Amino acid sequence: MKTEPFQWIEGGGATSAAGWMACGVAAGLKAGRNDMAMLLSDRPAACAALFTSNKVPAAPVQYDRPLAAKGRCRGVVVNVGCANACTGRAGYADTVATGRAAAAAAGVPVEQMLVCSTGTIGRRLPMDRVLAGARAAAAALRPDGGAEAAAAIMTTDTVPKQAALRVKIGRVEYTIGGMCKGSGMICPNLATTLIFLTTDARVAPAALRAALKAAVAKSFNRVTVDGDQSTNDTCVLFANGAAGGPALSPSAPGWKKFVSALSAVALSLAKQIVMDGEGATKFVTCAVEGAASAADAYAAARTIANSPLFKAACFGGDPNWGRVICAVGNSGAKCAELKTRIFFDDVCVFDRGRLATDAENARLADVMKQRAFEVRVDLGMGRFSDAVYTSDLSHGYVSINADYTT
Amino acid sequence: MKTEPFQWIEGGGATSAAGWMACGVAAGLKAGRNDMAMLLSDRPAACAALFTSNKVPAAPVQYDRPLAAKGRCRGVVVNVGCANACTGRAGYADTVATGRAAAAAAGVPVEQMLVCSTGTIGRRLPMDRVLAGARAAAAALRPDGGAEAAAAIMTTDTVPKQAALRVKIGRVEYTIGGMCKGSGMICPNLATTLIFLTTDARVAPAALRAALKAAVAKSFNRVTVDGDQSTNDTCVLFANGAAGGPALSPSAPGWKKFVSALSAVALSLAKQIVMDGEGATKFVTCAVEGAASAADAYAAARTIANSPLFKAACFGGDPNWGRVICAVGNSGAKCAELKTRIFFDDVCVFDRGRLATDAENARLADVMKQRAFEVRVDLGMGRFSDAVYTSDLSHGYVSINADYTT
Repeated sequence: MKTEPFQWIEGGGATSAAGWMACGVAAGLKAGRNDMAMLLSDRPAACAALFTSNKVPAAPVQYDRPLAAKGRCRGVVVNVGCANACTGRAGYADTVATGRAAAAAAGVPVEQMLVCSTGTIGRRLPMDRVLAGARAAAAALRPDGGAEAAAAIMTTDTVPKQAALRVKIGRVEYTIGGMCKGSGMICPNLATTLIFLTTDARVAPAALRAALKAAVAKSFNRVTVDGDQSTNDTCVLFANGAAGGPALSPSAPGWKKFVSALSAVALSLAKQIVMDGEGATKFVTCAVEGAASAADAYAAARTIANSPLFKAACFGGDPNWGRVICAVGNSGAKCAELKTRIFFDDVCVFDRGRLATDAENARLADVMKQRAFEVRVDLGMGRFSDAVYTSDLSHGYVSINADYTT
Repeated sequence: MKTEPFQWIEGGGATSAAGWMACGVAAGLKAGRNDMAMLLSDRPAACAALFTSNKVPAAPVQYDRPLAAKGRCRGVVVNVGCANACTGRAGYADTVATGRAAAAAAGVPVEQMLVCSTGTIGRRLPMDRVLAGARAAAAALRPDGGAEAAAAIMTTDTVPKQAALRVKIGRVEYTIGGMCKGSGMICPNLATTLIFLTTDARVAPAALRAALKAAVAKSFNRVTVDGDQSTNDTCVLFANGAAGGPALSPSAPGWKKFVSALSAVALSLAKQIVMDGEGATKFVTCAVEGAASAADAYAAARTIANSPLFKAACFGGDPNWGRVICAVGNSGAKCAELKTRIFFDDVCVFDRGRLATDAENARLADVMKQRAFEVRVDLGMGRFSDAVYTSDLSHGYVSINADYTT
């Protein structure tokens, strides 16, 4: 193991970086819990954002996209319980009103307050509660409110998801942190669910966008629970420069280190999403190596990770490695039976035509009993590799989604 | 309803057409049941076949492909319990030996006997039992053995799947029938699982291939249970001319009627597969109309039909139509919220921005309680339509696949 050039902050999150405040409040959208959150910088900040590629984006996605494109946002207000998706022009007006109320209460320009919603599609927001909640949230902001905010944005999540670390670049120590929510409708494509990353580094919007894209590529774009991408997926990275020091940029020293630290936070959050996948009992790393191209490596890893048959076998701990090679054969990646090797952790179950022995199959069953394991496929075709992280398909997933709205 | 120009044969199947024999025998591959089947024409026959596009095809697929390409095959021998996939050169030799034994016992040229296997991937066939089973099957062939063969090829299927009909073309009455197996690993792409279609019409191999492709396009290529395509998928159509009459061909009169009758048999079998989908409790038709292109219509229908979130909602009868529009937005098809309409049977739940009323949502819940219903999306973008058939995602699916091999 190489030593990571940064220090993780235990219990850290979206308010670990200097100048950031957050909170969670109960607006009455979900009974008996906090259901709205706000995240705000105490000074001007740059921002970069990625949104769902779903062609029926929710109202807040339509609203945020042009605001985030300007590169200067101070914060975000979030509600759960209702996605405000497929609600037409009236739903869009609800988002505008929410943003207006939140910005006014927080004392920031209206175009610098983003709005995010998550929950059921095709229902209108209860606006009296949402507007009161936005005002209450602005009044409740505090520098140690990150954990409370992370808990408030949960939907079917069973645990809040946060991460933060410190990284020294030159003589300045920066903090990067974040929170996210999501456990179903998780698909490796663009940003997934709601993700908010903050830092006290000073970074111009264009550079921030490059850093975010790089960090998301191998984190949120590499996790899958069920292959569905929602109408509301949003990932925002804010940088407020509160740590001081020179502006970071791709041409300045330390940029790679910054992106690498940001990527580590993103990957930690992405893995937390998979660990908390709806009904998940297992965390499975689907790694592919020896692929003929980067696209092949990704396609093969993703197809394994999305195969309901393989995921159900993981749930049952069924040592059915045939479903892995079947998925690889289905992925479109260049492959051949007599060149393929399959490993579960350190157990080789298929070696270019040679089948696992009974002893190896018994060891495979032991590997699959673990809470987390890796399946690794060497295609023997080239030098490209990739990995996608997935959960198992359990009775819990079916139960959660069989009566989500009722 | 327009009257169909053919008569269904109750209880009919692969031996309904003249000159066809079949049987099922117990070879000891699965305890307490028949596990091998044979289907044979009593005279020379033309054949056409479609195979899985999985890049790790099983040994029998590798073996059958060149034989079927010659266009002249008399029959097929089938085993369950072991897919003989990923078994390398030794597994291929097992298939060769099986075909040789079956052909010799049935008294037909070795290159006219196809071999199919289905079951667990990555295990060798118990060859002593398979060879004895092939010989026993040849001795047990009988003209009314279709139902017995359909039962013998079942794996996780809970019911055998057969269909047959009569169609009059000119002065000759032809019979077309078939059987298939499959309930998991069902994906709309090329032929799916094992499907054997027979007719007593006289059709040359090239024409037969055209007819098969047309029939499969809107039947087996339009059903999905879990989006996985297996290593062994095979669909064969045999024509032995036993009914007499002139050769049917695309340029001869009655060809469209023949293809339409063949398509009806294929669609009946395909729907039986979905009805018997692993753990399925619902049959859901996912229809798309008003698409800007045929590709868009198919992509949207397929994405709805493959969405685990929508399928779980169908299981629970959760009136969560938001998952339908979310899937459509994800499909890549051209669409817009304010042009889209969504129906469940005759209930409109979303009309170009207008949300369902409480009364409509209540009626939606009633629709989803049925054993079978249709979700229909009008994209309002053009004139193309398509439909994909799917089952729900239930606890039964998870249970079946969590311990398939153990």
